[in-house]
Amino acid sequence: MSNSRTDLIVFAIGGNALVRSGEKGTFEEQYHNVQVAVRQIVDFMKSDNNKNRIVLTHGNGPQVGATLVRHRLAEEYYPALPLYVCTAETQGFIGYLIEQALQDELDRSKMNKHVTTLLTRVIVDSNDDAFQNPTKPIGETFDNEMTEVLLRNEMVQLRKSRVGSDRTKYKLLVPSPKPIKIINYEAIRSLVDAGFIVVACGGGGIPVMKQNWKTLGVDAVIDKDLASERLATSIGASKLVLLTNVDGIYRNYGKKNQEFIHTVNIDMNFEQKLGLRDLESGSIGPKVQAAISFIRNGGKEAIVCSLQHLSDALAGFSGTHFFR
Amino acid sequence: MSNSRTDLIVFAIGGNALVRSGEKGTFEEQYHNVQVAVRQIVDFMKSDNNKNRIVLTHGNGPQVGATLVRHRLAEEYYPALPLYVCTAETQGFIGYLIEQALQDELDRSKMNKHVTTLLTRVIVDSNDDAFQNPTKPIGETFDNEMTEVLLRNEMVQLRKSRVGSDRTKYKLLVPSPKPIKIINYEAIRSLVDAGFIVVACGGGGIPVMKQNWKTLGVDAVIDKDLASERLATSIGASKLVLLTNVDGIYRNYGKKNQEFIHTVNIDMNFEQKLGLRDLESGSIGPKVQAAISFIRNGGKEAIVCSLQHLSDALAGFSGTHFFR
Repeated sequence: MSNSRTDLIVFAIGGNALVRSGEKGTFEEQYHNVQVAVRQIVDFMKSDNNKNRIVLTHGNGPQVGATLVRHRLAEEYYPALPLYVCTAETQGFIGYLIEQALQDELDRSKMNKHVTTLLTRVIVDSNDDAFQNPTKPIGETFDNEMTEVLLRNEMVQLRKSRVGSDRTKYKLLVPSPKPIKIINYEAIRSLVDAGFIVVACGGGGIPVMKQNWKTLGVDAVIDKDLASERLATSIGASKLVLLTNVDGIYRNYGKKNQEFIHTVNIDMNFEQKLGLRDLESGSIGPKVQAAISFIRNGGKEAIVCSLQHLSDALAGFSGTHFFR
Repeated sequence: MSNSRTDLIVFAIGGNALVRSGEKGTFEEQYHNVQVAVRQIVDFMKSDNNKNRIVLTHGNGPQVGATLVRHRLAEEYYPALPLYVCTAETQGFIGYLIEQALQDELDRSKMNKHVTTLLTRVIVDSNDDAFQNPTKPIGETFDNEMTEVLLRNEMVQLRKSRVGSDRTKYKLLVPSPKPIKIINYEAIRSLVDAGFIVVACGGGGIPVMKQNWKTLGVDAVIDKDLASERLATSIGASKLVLLTNVDGIYRNYGKKNQEFIHTVNIDMNFEQKLGLRDLESGSIGPKVQAAISFIRNGGKEAIVCSLQHLSDALAGFSGTHFFR
């Protein structure tokens, strides 16, 4: 920890942390949830004597679903904009919430730090298998009527998927291609080095592809943990902290023989030893993949932990820690 | 011009430049219009041998109206978010369009510059007279039914105003308080000094007010020219260029005796000499006010000109120029 003054930490917050189960997603609810979340970040900064450089990323699953619905329902008056523009809009909306709540909490704590938010575009591969197989759910569950509205004109490559055995509930799946490159990582790095706390890479970034000098938006939603790994690696972060609503990673999660994994040493055959191959396909999968990639790409430590135990996890007392 | 290497120029682009009269506002239309606009900026940069540091700001009049309608029409499914969140969303949407179109044009021209976009919050005064007197039109004209939908619940302080003598067309007016301070001007300045072209202050900024350490969003839309002046002054820009669809400022515009104003020297009694008091209340008013304030606050030159004649105007051959 001798080098801690210059530690650069990327924190990834889930879009679901902002719209809790059972909530309608009013402005007040989402803002309250953001305030709770940023308080944990500021508590860590205090415990750390404000020594670190910090970047925050966030998801947009519930919000981009709502945005898409709004565009579709107003089509009679205004043309619906593409899904990737919906993600750009959520970067504006959620970025605003986080920037304002975090800056206020820093001001209240008399910590001399400024927060700023950057739009982020992320390059994906047009040949990514994800385009043949949409897997990422966006929004809440929808009834059949709304699902048909959302599917009309096939403007977005959506797939309808029944929720359990209930014939009245559907979720919508969109392609989730792998992030390849964070376009504006140099601007993010520049601001962090100048002392700013940066909010970036919202909703996993606005997915785009390159055709010579032309850039085209892509109707997809990138996983925010995988995008956060790309960002953390690009800017040379030493730590990547993937925040969730569970303590960390369990083997056989939810079963009688569930077992908490405290540390993962990324060595030759760690995958067999730990059964991580199974984990990678579960809901915690992208976090495991992001953590492993980060370490393989030269990161010092990746942590999967709950927002509630953030300070403990960074002190090593909680969460699942990935090292080389 | 000996100091031109370090000239810092703020360009303000109108939201109406992106949705032209008679257009529906599809993604393709708006993106095409942005491409045309940024080509003018890049042409200037080429003529200038890429020596200057550049910030772009933009309006959001048509887009924030569309966003507000989308929120209102989807209320049955998702709570409508406040007007200032709608502006945050348009910063994401329009910022994405400008960043991508401009970066592509720079890449095509083999100019080694990177564009990045920052969300911008702007402080306004809760006692601003504008809250008693909404004057800024947002969106297009609406029929009576839509106007009633938008006015319901009085979620936003809107005022309905008949368009001419037509009883079926209304426009919506929102408060437009004066911008006092650009919250993140230091981050913008930091990026510009590091060599980035920065897109910021979209839609005049997200209006907020301070209550001790708390910050609250405000339902209003700030004039983007006035906000651009605040930004240009804060970051110590030498030039402020206010782009519009006319050549510059005319005395008695549209009348037989109209007269083009080439230069305005901001001295003791320039207002009487030029009849600027009348101009300040017209549609060109905020541009005149912004230009005058910029010079009074220490700026070197403010220019009001058309996007089409940008390079000529910056070379002094076109547009209305404000000096001390």
